[in-house]
Amino acid sequence: MRAEDRFVERLREALPPDERLRLGPGDDAAVVQCAAGPLVVTTDTLVEEVDFLTGEDPKRLGRRAVSVGLSDLAAMGAWPEFFLLTIGFPDSAREDLPLVLALAAAKRAGEFGAILAGGDLSRAAEVFLSTAIWGRPSGQVLKRSGARPGDGIFLSGWPGDAAAGLAIARARDAEPASGEGSWTPEGLGPPDETALLAAYRDPEPRLPLGRSLALEDLATAVIDVSDGLGADAGRLARASGVRLVIESESLPLSPALLAFARLAGRDPVEMALGGGDDYELLFTVPASKAGRFADPPPEWGVAVRRVGRVESGTGAFLEEERGMRPIDELGYDHFGVAP
Amino acid sequence: MRAEDRFVERLREALPPDERLRLGPGDDAAVVQCAAGPLVVTTDTLVEEVDFLTGEDPKRLGRRAVSVGLSDLAAMGAWPEFFLLTIGFPDSAREDLPLVLALAAAKRAGEFGAILAGGDLSRAAEVFLSTAIWGRPSGQVLKRSGARPGDGIFLSGWPGDAAAGLAIARARDAEPASGEGSWTPEGLGPPDETALLAAYRDPEPRLPLGRSLALEDLATAVIDVSDGLGADAGRLARASGVRLVIESESLPLSPALLAFARLAGRDPVEMALGGGDDYELLFTVPASKAGRFADPPPEWGVAVRRVGRVESGTGAFLEEERGMRPIDELGYDHFGVAP
Repeated sequence: MRAEDRFVERLREALPPDERLRLGPGDDAAVVQCAAGPLVVTTDTLVEEVDFLTGEDPKRLGRRAVSVGLSDLAAMGAWPEFFLLTIGFPDSAREDLPLVLALAAAKRAGEFGAILAGGDLSRAAEVFLSTAIWGRPSGQVLKRSGARPGDGIFLSGWPGDAAAGLAIARARDAEPASGEGSWTPEGLGPPDETALLAAYRDPEPRLPLGRSLALEDLATAVIDVSDGLGADAGRLARASGVRLVIESESLPLSPALLAFARLAGRDPVEMALGGGDDYELLFTVPASKAGRFADPPPEWGVAVRRVGRVESGTGAFLEEERGMRPIDELGYDHFGVAP
Repeated sequence: MRAEDRFVERLREALPPDERLRLGPGDDAAVVQCAAGPLVVTTDTLVEEVDFLTGEDPKRLGRRAVSVGLSDLAAMGAWPEFFLLTIGFPDSAREDLPLVLALAAAKRAGEFGAILAGGDLSRAAEVFLSTAIWGRPSGQVLKRSGARPGDGIFLSGWPGDAAAGLAIARARDAEPASGEGSWTPEGLGPPDETALLAAYRDPEPRLPLGRSLALEDLATAVIDVSDGLGADAGRLARASGVRLVIESESLPLSPALLAFARLAGRDPVEMALGGGDDYELLFTVPASKAGRFADPPPEWGVAVRRVGRVESGTGAFLEEERGMRPIDELGYDHFGVAP
């Protein structure tokens, strides 16, 4: 049997049966059972040496590929149902690499009740993983475009932790090519190091939070922070036709990030605004509903804090003691240079 | 504005509005309107120097990326509704490359009434395009698994023409790396050369044929021939638990392929069995329904011919004067070496 067909057979054997999947991997396409109504669809890709470091553990990588796609659904207030997985890999890869990646991805999706419907394998010069995920809105669809002057700005989690985790991962990586931006975390406490590495390597899609925002109609606009808080705040501002002002004293900086930044001689505010890979939700909330966030329910699984305010105008800014400065050009641009 | 966001704005301006698309490119995910029932989903990827040659015209490439995905839907008897497009491209690419690719892909899908719902951009060392396409079955879903002994085997189009087209495209390519397997077509008539190049560069998804097979319940099993007639016949045989016998004297070899093979000193039968990139439909038909193919309707847009028979047993074979030989290990393996 051909290696590709062996892969499909092993995958089919390993995946639990699910009645929603009428025809799974192994034919020209998959067939899923679909209810009437709006379908939320997204696609995301991780590329070696762009989105992850060469030599990354394949189980961690398969899991992360799904998590970053699920983060998009969280930002729409949707819950996932199915996904497709494409894996590119070089001739030099071990034959079981695609299987390890696919099973880790399927397991991660399964934590949220979503199933692997099918996919594609391709030879490539570098490893890449692309997911297409679709799901259902929980109540209304959350968009980037509804923020209004007077709304508060809220953010889940700790921006910048993932950027610090990436710097640590790079420092651990023996590859000289990935040494840029790295820092060997001598002196950083192991709990801080573990927390920062986990923020980068194993982001948690904020699906329960997104579902609550949609079901309880709490947010006027939502975006997931993937390219950096500054860049994504700028996107929400532009889509809504408003100005976003992040208040410097409200910007949440984790104790781990502060310890890292102090030891590494880096500015934690710059890391929080421009670091990327956070996969947290940034959203705007009318004043009448801000009280809901005083005591967030445990199922959200993350702290949610007010970080600023919406004004009339354009752009995204950080308000500091010395004045306002634009932040929407910070962060990662898929067309250009990483920060 | 960031280059990535400029891309999305230009894309949105260029795409025609469609009421099925409730939220198009530019948010965290797209939202499409979905009717109840089975949904057929597939994903396909084209990678530079694996599936296409460096320097390929981006309009042709965007079009081809959609065509090869649609071929999978054709093999399921499904018709496309919408698709997602992921584009990986190097820093060195022109800024308008993703836009040219995306608009060409959207235009091709539009020929069949399908729309671009969203996508993703990523930096990468090489260009790649990945599509995820959704559609609806036309009547029953066509699988690989229903062939029965006594069925006839049918094939659309001319197998091997795309392999000859690839050899010609490689010969025209100035890159030394892609010289292997190439042949400068001196002496080949321009109409033959044009036909072979088109078979490789611009495959036609057999959606009308697939729809007829599904609606009229003509086929017991269907596969699209993408990795080579031998390999894909082997897959259909294994999925159905039968033996496929391709009869040598019935194997359709185009006049263009025969001219090419004669001038290039290659075996046209080997090219037809192992060449790949054909994107034709191979399917099995009960004897009672074989008459439907005596006078194929013009909307199929392609010749359909009987090429062999289904027997009890296993494997795929070519029946020649000197006996039977296995053909299911020929063709392209995504894990290994191209033919």
